[in-house]
Amino acid sequence: MAYSAQRFAICLWVGMLAHGPTVAAVPAINGTWEIALVTLGVTQNRRLVISGQGSDYQATMGNLKFTGRWESGSLHLRCQAEVPCGELTLRGADTSITGEGNLNSAPATLRGKRSAVRPYAAPRTVDFEPKQFSGLFSSGAAPVLTLFPEDTVRTRTIDAEGFDAQGVRVTTLVNPQTGPFYVETAMPGDTLAIHFIKIRTNRATADMYGDALAANALEPYSLRREQKIPKGSSTWTLNTEHGVATLAQPSEKLAHFEVPLQPMLGCVGVAPAFGQSFRTVNLGAYGGNLDYSGVHEGATLYLPVFQPGALLFIGDGHARQGDGELTGTGLETSMDVEFTVDLIKDQSLGQPRIEDDDFVMISGIGGSLSDALQLATTGMVRWLKDTYGLNPGDIAMVLGSSMRYDITEIVDPQIHVVAKLRKDSLARIATAKGPAPGE
Amino acid sequence: MAYSAQRFAICLWVGMLAHGPTVAAVPAINGTWEIALVTLGVTQNRRLVISGQGSDYQATMGNLKFTGRWESGSLHLRCQAEVPCGELTLRGADTSITGEGNLNSAPATLRGKRSAVRPYAAPRTVDFEPKQFSGLFSSGAAPVLTLFPEDTVRTRTIDAEGFDAQGVRVTTLVNPQTGPFYVETAMPGDTLAIHFIKIRTNRATADMYGDALAANALEPYSLRREQKIPKGSSTWTLNTEHGVATLAQPSEKLAHFEVPLQPMLGCVGVAPAFGQSFRTVNLGAYGGNLDYSGVHEGATLYLPVFQPGALLFIGDGHARQGDGELTGTGLETSMDVEFTVDLIKDQSLGQPRIEDDDFVMISGIGGSLSDALQLATTGMVRWLKDTYGLNPGDIAMVLGSSMRYDITEIVDPQIHVVAKLRKDSLARIATAKGPAPGE
Amino acid sequence: MAYSAQRFAICLWVGMLAHGPTVAAVPAINGTWEIALVTLGVTQNRRLVISGQGSDYQATMGNLKFTGRWESGSLHLRCQAEVPCGELTLRGADTSITGEGNLNSAPATLRGKRSAVRPYAAPRTVDFEPKQFSGLFSSGAAPVLTLFPEDTVRTRTIDAEGFDAQGVRVTTLVNPQTGPFYVETAMPGDTLAIHFIKIRTNRATADMYGDALAANALEPYSLRREQKIPKGSSTWTLNTEHGVATLAQPSEKLAHFEVPLQPMLGCVGVAPAFGQSFRTVNLGAYGGNLDYSGVHEGATLYLPVFQPGALLFIGDGHARQGDGELTGTGLETSMDVEFTVDLIKDQSLGQPRIEDDDFVMISGIGGSLSDALQLATTGMVRWLKDTYGLNPGDIAMVLGSSMRYDITEIVDPQIHVVAKLRKDSLARIATAKGPAPGE
Amino acid sequence: MAYSAQRFAICLWVGMLAHGPTVAAVPAINGTWEIALVTLGVTQNRRLVISGQGSDYQATMGNLKFTGRWESGSLHLRCQAEVPCGELTLRGADTSITGEGNLNSAPATLRGKRSAVRPYAAPRTVDFEPKQFSGLFSSGAAPVLTLFPEDTVRTRTIDAEGFDAQGVRVTTLVNPQTGPFYVETAMPGDTLAIHFIKIRTNRATADMYGDALAANALEPYSLRREQKIPKGSSTWTLNTEHGVATLAQPSEKLAHFEVPLQPMLGCVGVAPAFGQSFRTVNLGAYGGNLDYSGVHEGATLYLPVFQPGALLFIGDGHARQGDGELTGTGLETSMDVEFTVDLIKDQSLGQPRIEDDDFVMISGIGGSLSDALQLATTGMVRWLKDTYGLNPGDIAMVLGSSMRYDITEIVDPQIHVVAKLRKDSLARIATAKGPAPGE
Repeated sequence: MAYSAQRFAICLWVGMLAHGPTVAAVPAINGTWEIALVTLGVTQNRRLVISGQGSDYQATMGNLKFTGRWESGSLHLRCQAEVPCGELTLRGADTSITGEGNLNSAPATLRGKRSAVRPYAAPRTVDFEPKQFSGLFSSGAAPVLTLFPEDTVRTRTIDAEGFDAQGVRVTTLVNPQTGPFYVETAMPGDTLAIHFIKIRTNRATADMYGDALAANALEPYSLRREQKIPKGSSTWTLNTEHGVATLAQPSEKLAHFEVPLQPMLGCVGVAPAFGQSFRTVNLGAYGGNLDYSGVHEGATLYLPVFQPGALLFIGDGHARQGDGELTGTGLETSMDVEFTVDLIKDQSLGQPRIEDDDFVMISGIGGSLSDALQLATTGMVRWLKDTYGLNPGDIAMVLGSSMRYDITEIVDPQIHVVAKLRKDSLARIATAKGPAPGE
Repeated sequence: MAYSAQRFAICLWVGMLAHGPTVAAVPAINGTWEIALVTLGVTQNRRLVISGQGSDYQATMGNLKFTGRWESGSLHLRCQAEVPCGELTLRGADTSITGEGNLNSAPATLRGKRSAVRPYAAPRTVDFEPKQFSGLFSSGAAPVLTLFPEDTVRTRTIDAEGFDAQGVRVTTLVNPQTGPFYVETAMPGDTLAIHFIKIRTNRATADMYGDALAANALEPYSLRREQKIPKGSSTWTLNTEHGVATLAQPSEKLAHFEVPLQPMLGCVGVAPAFGQSFRTVNLGAYGGNLDYSGVHEGATLYLPVFQPGALLFIGDGHARQGDGELTGTGLETSMDVEFTVDLIKDQSLGQPRIEDDDFVMISGIGGSLSDALQLATTGMVRWLKDTYGLNPGDIAMVLGSSMRYDITEIVDPQIHVVAKLRKDSLARIATAKGPAPGE
Repeated sequence: MAYSAQRFAICLWVGMLAHGPTVAAVPAINGTWEIALVTLGVTQNRRLVISGQGSDYQATMGNLKFTGRWESGSLHLRCQAEVPCGELTLRGADTSITGEGNLNSAPATLRGKRSAVRPYAAPRTVDFEPKQFSGLFSSGAAPVLTLFPEDTVRTRTIDAEGFDAQGVRVTTLVNPQTGPFYVETAMPGDTLAIHFIKIRTNRATADMYGDALAANALEPYSLRREQKIPKGSSTWTLNTEHGVATLAQPSEKLAHFEVPLQPMLGCVGVAPAFGQSFRTVNLGAYGGNLDYSGVHEGATLYLPVFQPGALLFIGDGHARQGDGELTGTGLETSMDVEFTVDLIKDQSLGQPRIEDDDFVMISGIGGSLSDALQLATTGMVRWLKDTYGLNPGDIAMVLGSSMRYDITEIVDPQIHVVAKLRKDSLARIATAKGPAPGE
Repeated sequence: MAYSAQRFAICLWVGMLAHGPTVAAVPAINGTWEIALVTLGVTQNRRLVISGQGSDYQATMGNLKFTGRWESGSLHLRCQAEVPCGELTLRGADTSITGEGNLNSAPATLRGKRSAVRPYAAPRTVDFEPKQFSGLFSSGAAPVLTLFPEDTVRTRTIDAEGFDAQGVRVTTLVNPQTGPFYVETAMPGDTLAIHFIKIRTNRATADMYGDALAANALEPYSLRREQKIPKGSSTWTLNTEHGVATLAQPSEKLAHFEVPLQPMLGCVGVAPAFGQSFRTVNLGAYGGNLDYSGVHEGATLYLPVFQPGALLFIGDGHARQGDGELTGTGLETSMDVEFTVDLIKDQSLGQPRIEDDDFVMISGIGGSLSDALQLATTGMVRWLKDTYGLNPGDIAMVLGSSMRYDITEIVDPQIHVVAKLRKDSLARIATAKGPAPGE
């Protein structure tokens, strides 16, 4: 699925919600609400969608479906499932809603607000100059900017040690993040799409901030035999004209060593689930410190949404990075970044997915290489099933013949392995919606 | 280092040994011997090289160096090291040698034969039609053919389930091997180079012999939720004209699915160390069931030699294979194979190395993904140090910026990860012997 | 080291600090302060200890040492190290302190308050009945009670699914925690000791909340062959009189199966480092969901302090638990708990340590069994070195002959392995402070 | 099941086979044969049991069942299964048998000999003084002694570096083995029981042959910070009178350090499957270098049989060993060993099992700690199912409440984890054959 087509589809739908006739109905309770549902002291944020009139109302709230009737100034909803799952009574005004009842045998209350509608006609592009930075992926961080789906941001990131485009250290945080950006209407259970229009280095140097290989990348007994040497320079000179990086103070042997620039963002994440807060060295289902060269200009990263507004963070630009991120860093540098956000409502793979022109890539993030590979493979299996309707036998043939893995990093608190498939192969699989191009 | 240049250098050296004037000396003990050294009941095979005359002899045997003198019809050698390491008294005739003494405080005896010299002027090409197959990588298997370094063999392999080019099952062994080929003059401590001139499928079908993903590639809890489906066909049709494989009996969804042919040998191995014998599903420092797409036509595989004659086995052709070998197999099929063997004496990385036009690849083979990655990385570190004289800081810069990993298979008794570097980057590093091309 | 002796020693020292003559000095800046140090926007909490007069002041702040002089109403401190590390100017009143300067080349400001002194003569025992529960290990949770070192608390925990001593579900949180308890004077870099006087089940049932083994505890291919059976009951009856648990609705085969009660707390944790917040299914250096049978009545758990006041959480009682916590739970039940807190200032192993009458136990918590074992072993090595001054050769002899490991759980987001040594063996090692009893 | 009761039962059965009336039938083909079955060049060793007469014969060969008739001097057998599985025609004399036909669609031939019957009335005890030692677990090693089930051997083992009871080095093999012992009538698919009547140290010293902890037991980065110290002594003095070991040349700190003697055999193995040969540092389903303290005097080890005669090897005695075998060794020493062999025919768990008075222990041996734990757990699940007929829900309750793990060693080529259950708990489970004692 190409990024632009999908964006267009979502655009149409959002437009219908905003301007359609249902908003004008007499009991103003119809529409899309963002609610906080409280059960035995535990709060969950959900999108509640209500439509209908009189004795014929429908509502959905996450996986739950309700039918209901309007009576005595309240909407009376009954949860529909094989086993009775509860009842709610709602009272709504123009912009706020409250309710109470019981769900799955526990008393429940809710309150919420109407989901926002973009107040300007077309998506806009905003320039944002970051002043302060976040050291946590957290729903507790105050948003620096509010966006609507399809909006674009032009901004900057500083490097992993806090040095900015001018080479000035502006924070001692590790992996300081630009953001978070609040994406209106994003709710848990959605997928946030971040399309990177631009990821470019904006200064002439990058640093690896270390000159030793990760100890866990080496055979343990070899570490005891290791030759200790004086610390060398790990600074690289970035030559954007020729698209290469060279060591700033190379040894004689590496005097002519150069590597192509492949700018990427090491960190792109949203606020994690359950109100948790993680240092920005971490990664997980919420993205974060992915440290993957696949997050480059032109790519789109899809992340599960866990908190209202998603709360998007970006940072940790690398002019280039080897597999495994073996020195614990890439060629760390500051970046000019331009990206568009979009939303896929009520769908979630539950883990990061990346697409560029060549590959569909699924992130597996776990405590060990083995766990990460298993999660990446299982994510790809699920994505093939969801997208193409393939059965397990089909999937075995596709992956057995064509799977590719990247070991993206082994040095962060969690290990990251990417499972990927070529798009030209995928293009020859018939989808649920239509035949493959070959047909 | 290009394959052809290296082969030529070895050729010259072997020639000098064979035809030089030292062979004619009165006590015919000078020259290169292949000996069995017995210490406290344990036998080790070694190359013993002797030169000198009168009271001025030198000898080497593996890492040990000796000086000596001729007296009373015997050569008296004294081992040279910081700590006294022993003495040997040798008696040699034209073709055989015996000796006794002590080494490292233990009584030692030896007997051996003169290292063979190629009896024909130029390397030759031999056609070999395999009649029986081996199910063990073992020094106990009788050689099917004896080669000299630089000789070439044209032969065939049958598929992993024992089906040959005609589709007839000729053995029930798993991964039946063609060979072993005995390579004259190869001794433990050497490296055997196998250059693949040709690896081509020779029949119209390949089979995955299974239609399920490896259970250890999937998140454990997902296995419990797995949908059981009727076993499908896992046979592929090979279209060599268009260079693609398609499923022979595809589901509707995969009716147009096709993948490029990338023929490779899953198994290339030598006899393991210490007289051990492993089933041909195993892999290790001796190569074996590597299941790596890098072992393709045009590539050269370098394996440590552990037994006299190396004893080379090949088999398990794949028309193509995905990373991880996720169905437990590639597209298994029979192959026409042509290869040249060569020898690098007294040098060994201790693990497999592969080179093709684009990459230098080091095999890491271990009990887990983590162990395999550590061994691959450490092998690459050692290779960079040996080849270019890089120090640990240099190596960190090269690998941190440029390392690539392949997860070749996770389904065999040992896991295989390859660490690789692009040759165009390596070409810009100065070697011990000369500057990088850029200089 | 026995718990009571150590507590007594700390008691004396705290008393001296509180009532000693230094508090009365004219510039009231002497004493112990709890400060927030801000550098480039990043805040760190530290204990600052100042003593001296006139031109002869000393101060310590974590690892940093200062000398200084009083001048013009301010204390001028200079950081002492091999490389100049900065200067601070402080102004203090009776209860608050402020300052500014630079540390390690970055501008720094600080503000703080005088460390509290226990306002009652002797340590006290408090009864605390929890009303609400925490689902996060977090410094963001409001303390439910403030304690001083040596104080004792009598309280209760509810079970992992939120059921209390009466079997009533009071929350839908997973592993709901009693607390947090704020321990006055605890600062980052300290160790909090929690001595459990009582851990007793307080109702007649426990539940395993599941009847299947953890999928990651089983050989992957065996999961595919697994027999699906109707869900059984996982409720146990607790017989405290006979000290055993039996299944409430056993199958015929298990009608007479019983296991001894071994009550323990699955969760004991403090607020994690760097302001992070983790769900109470997690564990780490801060303790948390340790799920270890070693945390039983009579044991003392030592945890690193990462936030002012430590913020202690307890919960997740198990009437008993097998190694590995193979069903994802122990015999989950509510508990009566009584514990005393104490503080070891300016010392931290950096990971949990447990002691009971028989063993010293070090927690290793990591992403895989291998990582967890490595961290446990390394923690034990460090503890032996710190406590006894053993060199690596000594340590190898002790651990090679006597190490014991427990696999405590493999089902939480992090894996937990405990390394342990018998105290009777340790008693025969001479400490830095004196000979072993045998001498 | 106690060892002695089981031995008695087998004894009776063997006696009936040997002396029963069926041996006397006219066509002497009835009885138990040990055959080599050849299919497409691959040989498998099987026990073939034939009984019947005229047109009513039955036969079993491993899992295959046959019916047949005697005709024209041959026995014509037809394989019985849901899908036709083949036919064999057999010709047998007093002591040898031949046959041909087809099995599972492939041509098959067989030849074999009558299974041996113990030629002496009662089991005997043999003293065996080893003269030479084996460095491979291999079916290629020539048996040093032939035993019948229930026979007992009194012998000796030398230590892991080849030093004998007198402290003389008699071989440079690593883990040199006494044996192999050929156990008559043992065939693939059986279980060999080795009951250790005696495992006692027979000299006054043991050595750890190394003074450093295994690098893979330590956190990788800690290895770089490790303090290098001069190699110390790793020799221990064994005091059998007091049952303790002390360091022979301790540091001052460890002058009074002592540990209890707990003699065990590090190696007990049989010849591996498929004709493979492994160095005696290896371990697997065939046992081998298990390095487990559970293999002590009084324990019984059950090993799968893979080759005719099983070929039992023993060696690598440890006066004691810590969990994980962290220095790569135990307290290595020579041993006096006395053991009885026995056979459980046509039953195999497929992995080692150990029993002593307190525990049933199942070995999990794999490439990583995680693999080893999964194999141990799965083995225990299978054993509980086979022995007690428990269903998965029952098994989850038993293991979730009562599983214990030992990490036996992490330093050999394969990792070893033991899953164990207390026998007093197991005694309260009803077996397939009868109620639990409580009933």
